Amino acid sequence: MSSEFELIELFQHIGAEFYKQNGIITGPGDDCAIFDLDTPIVTSVDSSVIDVHFPSNASPQDIGYRAVAVALSDIAAMGCKPIAFSLSVSSQISDEIWYKKLAEGIEDIANKFEISLIGGDLTNGPLNLNAIVYGTPYSEKILMRDSAQVGDLICISSPTGRAKKGLADWNNMESNSKYIQDYLRPLPKIELGKKIVNFASACIDTSDGLLADLKKLLKASKQGAVINLDDIPITIDINDINAGDDYDLCFTVPKSKFDNTFYKIGEVTEGLEIKLTSNKGYDIDINGYEHF
Amino acid sequence: MSSEFELIELFQHIGAEFYKQNGIITGPGDDCAIFDLDTPIVTSVDSSVIDVHFPSNASPQDIGYRAVAVALSDIAAMGCKPIAFSLSVSSQISDEIWYKKLAEGIEDIANKFEISLIGGDLTNGPLNLNAIVYGTPYSEKILMRDSAQVGDLICISSPTGRAKKGLADWNNMESNSKYIQDYLRPLPKIELGKKIVNFASACIDTSDGLLADLKKLLKASKQGAVINLDDIPITIDINDINAGDDYDLCFTVPKSKFDNTFYKIGEVTEGLEIKLTSNKGYDIDINGYEHF
Repeated sequence: MSSEFELIELFQHIGAEFYKQNGIITGPGDDCAIFDLDTPIVTSVDSSVIDVHFPSNASPQDIGYRAVAVALSDIAAMGCKPIAFSLSVSSQISDEIWYKKLAEGIEDIANKFEISLIGGDLTNGPLNLNAIVYGTPYSEKILMRDSAQVGDLICISSPTGRAKKGLADWNNMESNSKYIQDYLRPLPKIELGKKIVNFASACIDTSDGLLADLKKLLKASKQGAVINLDDIPITIDINDINAGDDYDLCFTVPKSKFDNTFYKIGEVTEGLEIKLTSNKGYDIDINGYEHF
Repeated sequence: MSSEFELIELFQHIGAEFYKQNGIITGPGDDCAIFDLDTPIVTSVDSSVIDVHFPSNASPQDIGYRAVAVALSDIAAMGCKPIAFSLSVSSQISDEIWYKKLAEGIEDIANKFEISLIGGDLTNGPLNLNAIVYGTPYSEKILMRDSAQVGDLICISSPTGRAKKGLADWNNMESNSKYIQDYLRPLPKIELGKKIVNFASACIDTSDGLLADLKKLLKASKQGAVINLDDIPITIDINDINAGDDYDLCFTVPKSKFDNTFYKIGEVTEGLEIKLTSNKGYDIDINGYEHF
């Protein structure tokens, strides 16, 4: 088996060509990495556990790509630009080839977003990846989840339930399914965050399911909503509103800023309840109101 | 079992009273935390895995305390002031009391260093804690490991092997052993880092063992060393120089800056080799020279 030190060398160059543009004055190799920036820094961590967040038969390339992608989605939700990430990997795998492939997937997403790996940890343990991401604002404004205003439209940018369908197709070995990539290699909506940051009033990423994440946004904003289920773009059926892993953004905008590239699914209202309406008689476990 | 959301509430207030002094404009509760500082930020991540980094019968208070403490040691090694941390916890434990105790240990160390918990993740998986730490320089200077100079003295601040003895005593249920706390609740040498930052030439923390970490410092500095084994303060025997988990600092200082509160163990030399000398005929697996 390769030593921990040899394995770390597979990773430590990733995104080194972007250090300067990302304000990184020390990358991996010392006790800490160092940022020197004259802007705020946003940061988040996301854990990916085998058989919980990814299937055990996923390729190491996809496991690495996905672990970073899902963390970057939190940077997108703040309307910020990703600059760097750290990766802590616990693994009991001894095959160096596996780590090379993991590094390939990580390098793919680092290059896609021009971000730099600045550190990490490699330990012995059941397979678990923690990606820590760092970003900076595109403009003066950072997009929060606690600032939705009554009358704002509630929007998403793509159909719900794609990742759920992708995971089902993966498990059924339907290898031609276009949805599998939606699950294995979700696209963090960095470009969308950048587009909406200056006019959206609030934003959250839909990692836990559209309805669950919308609830969090409304609770933080101390507002309610009327949601028209018929307006929600779905993949399989209306239960997709509870499907996780889509990593879209759910955001609120003043009516004047609505853009028909967005899907409007409802409107922010006073009070602390979500009213779900439909003319289709959807077979979903709701009572018209959902209190939180 | 409590919901993930209820469990997160046990943690999210930790260190909230220090947000302002630590430049944190958004703590936990949004997609990302936000720092707004006009100084560089140093950051590192450390993973703590059950039965690898801590014994499965350790108390949740000690597990939480230790996971953060070992990560803070990296901030100490940079001669920086810790300001914040995030914590990602994978666990299959369903007992809310366990999480309350975990939060107590984490709060202990947060209060000790006046640092704020700014985020994290709580996922289902084998017990694994990842602590991400953030710090800022005390002065203009940040202490690196790559800048040791020929002729500098190599120093540590406390005897090696204390944590190894502590773990052995823990496993032997020698509950009166003073070393157990050295293992379970190591003290990150933040004060020492602050004291030496302006005159030390290089520094590393001794998490993997004094000799292994000194090698890393010398390799990064492209220097060698003569180490006098007789000068190394030990707990059990000279093999303590290979014992991990002490979380002391190993640092180099110009001769003029040596202070007799430090233990001098050797001197930086030209070349890429470590010469280990002793008049005691230590029974240790060395050949006089160790190449790297």
